[in-house]
Amino acid sequence: MEKGDELGRVTLADVAREAEVSVSTVSKVLNGRTDVSASTRGRVERVLREHDYQRAARNGGEAPLIEIVFHELDSLWAMELLRGVETVANEHGAAVVVAHSGSRHAPGPGWIDAVLRRRPLGVVLVFSSLPPELKRQLRARSIPFVIIDPAGNPDPDIPSVGSANWAGGLAATRHLIELGHRRIAIVTGPEDTLCSLARLDGYRSAMSMAGLDIDPALIAFGDFHAEGGLARAKQLLELPDRPTAIFAGSDLQALGVMEAARVCGLRVPEDLSVVGYDDLDIAQWTSPALTTVRQPLREMAEQATRLILALRSGEATAAPTRLELSTTLVVRSSTVAPGPAAS
Amino acid sequence: MEKGDELGRVTLADVAREAEVSVSTVSKVLNGRTDVSASTRGRVERVLREHDYQRAARNGGEAPLIEIVFHELDSLWAMELLRGVETVANEHGAAVVVAHSGSRHAPGPGWIDAVLRRRPLGVVLVFSSLPPELKRQLRARSIPFVIIDPAGNPDPDIPSVGSANWAGGLAATRHLIELGHRRIAIVTGPEDTLCSLARLDGYRSAMSMAGLDIDPALIAFGDFHAEGGLARAKQLLELPDRPTAIFAGSDLQALGVMEAARVCGLRVPEDLSVVGYDDLDIAQWTSPALTTVRQPLREMAEQATRLILALRSGEATAAPTRLELSTTLVVRSSTVAPGPAAS
Repeated sequence: MEKGDELGRVTLADVAREAEVSVSTVSKVLNGRTDVSASTRGRVERVLREHDYQRAARNGGEAPLIEIVFHELDSLWAMELLRGVETVANEHGAAVVVAHSGSRHAPGPGWIDAVLRRRPLGVVLVFSSLPPELKRQLRARSIPFVIIDPAGNPDPDIPSVGSANWAGGLAATRHLIELGHRRIAIVTGPEDTLCSLARLDGYRSAMSMAGLDIDPALIAFGDFHAEGGLARAKQLLELPDRPTAIFAGSDLQALGVMEAARVCGLRVPEDLSVVGYDDLDIAQWTSPALTTVRQPLREMAEQATRLILALRSGEATAAPTRLELSTTLVVRSSTVAPGPAAS
Repeated sequence: MEKGDELGRVTLADVAREAEVSVSTVSKVLNGRTDVSASTRGRVERVLREHDYQRAARNGGEAPLIEIVFHELDSLWAMELLRGVETVANEHGAAVVVAHSGSRHAPGPGWIDAVLRRRPLGVVLVFSSLPPELKRQLRARSIPFVIIDPAGNPDPDIPSVGSANWAGGLAATRHLIELGHRRIAIVTGPEDTLCSLARLDGYRSAMSMAGLDIDPALIAFGDFHAEGGLARAKQLLELPDRPTAIFAGSDLQALGVMEAARVCGLRVPEDLSVVGYDDLDIAQWTSPALTTVRQPLREMAEQATRLILALRSGEATAAPTRLELSTTLVVRSSTVAPGPAAS
């Protein structure tokens, strides 16, 4: 195939010729229009893929959009990320489009066509990875994308922003050890996310470094929601030799742990110390206020958005980058030294 | 001025002639483009206004957007509304643009230009009113708008969706009276929103109907945030004849009230019953779980979005409509009969 422009790049006309369609049909496929037959679209996409076609970024008078895609839109957690994206988008006169997908692992099937029609400045994805075909389609349209990956399973192929999960787990557990706790339980997140495992490993390391035994009965996996915290904590608190402290792995789980304590007739913090993770706004308004590991969600979203704008303007290269922001322990009222009965 | 189309409506060409500019300049003004001088834009807007120009709704192959504008984007409350808009937008293949403005009373100054450029299917505004100029500009572009007005100050000129605030205040107070409380305090919202006053009036009516005195010392105005609930409740609980129950006016305020109880050494619900308002997800995870008045925020946002789509398609007329959804009392664990010490 001849290369059509002065830089030797494949042009729209080249693609049209090779796919045996009109230039306007190639353009329709690039724009995610639905009035192209599936077979034609498949042929055009194949030619685009074979030649690693990359369209010039759009630079018209249109209203600029930045898109954020969540796998769930149901917690303060999502709100913090949205605020971060919105702050930076605002500074640059762009509006924020919010999309959401029921799946934890990738945006829904209709999403990509809609994005191609919207042609946003870029896409912030709150997922751990992206199917190769979606990556390719976004790249062919020069739409930059960055993953916010608090789950800690970075796709090596995509720029991502995360936070220091292992260090967070270490800090939470050390704090409890320093208060004098020995029977320390953890309800970490789901077993299939690396961030859960990283926080758990931080817990293990803190216990080992303090010369404390790790009792497998005190390790539980939750779901990052209050329901899971309640269910797991009830089991832990019914153990004959119950823990005096629980590191809850998320603030929402910590709410469930506090409810479990109440149901079991235990007071927080006198009978049970509780540490959360995230430091959502709500953490300062639990009774007692929650000691937690602050994960800078808003800043993570701000960084991801700035990275998109830098990729867009050519200030950053598309070479995969991993930004990891630090986590910090915030001590409030839900943790104290274990009571005489427990120690 | 001659009227240019067969229906006798003013055309773009008519406006251009009268404003002594080109048709493309009129089009730029309609599209919110910034490459038009302020004086030219003013002249064109004046002609548009004088002739009550209304552009045909856009109907191209563009990706459809629905816009939601918040005055603050910092609570579960906003998240509930966003989810409602997103659900209905999704059903119709539209994406959601989120904008926010620091002011409680109207979108920021740059917002209207950006909206005109984006040309959304419609706009859901979480405000009580809209400046006349903004209304006119949206109408001239045939962009329908609906107000979600939980504050209860409906602009008579705009379709709006609200909820039954007076009935909610009445139900919350009646519940406390039925439990046997007599010293019942209220921390309602800000004094300048009608919804605060409606909830307060519901409280007053419930007290009067039960033959109970209304003690002005037990009436306080908050800010709908936890901080305000904490500050007001502390003052109430330090009264020589303190209340045995507080109706908190919002769930976030209820969190502050619960913290005030803890600070004052009072147990909820044994020493103090607390009722919230809204029924955010968090209400079931406070310790104890919060009795509250459910305001159907998500449904309100869904209704507002459906109304926009109906206005858009011509199924509904732009005649102002006020939809008021009902509120319901949700009884959980934060309310019990007053203890013997208090009664």
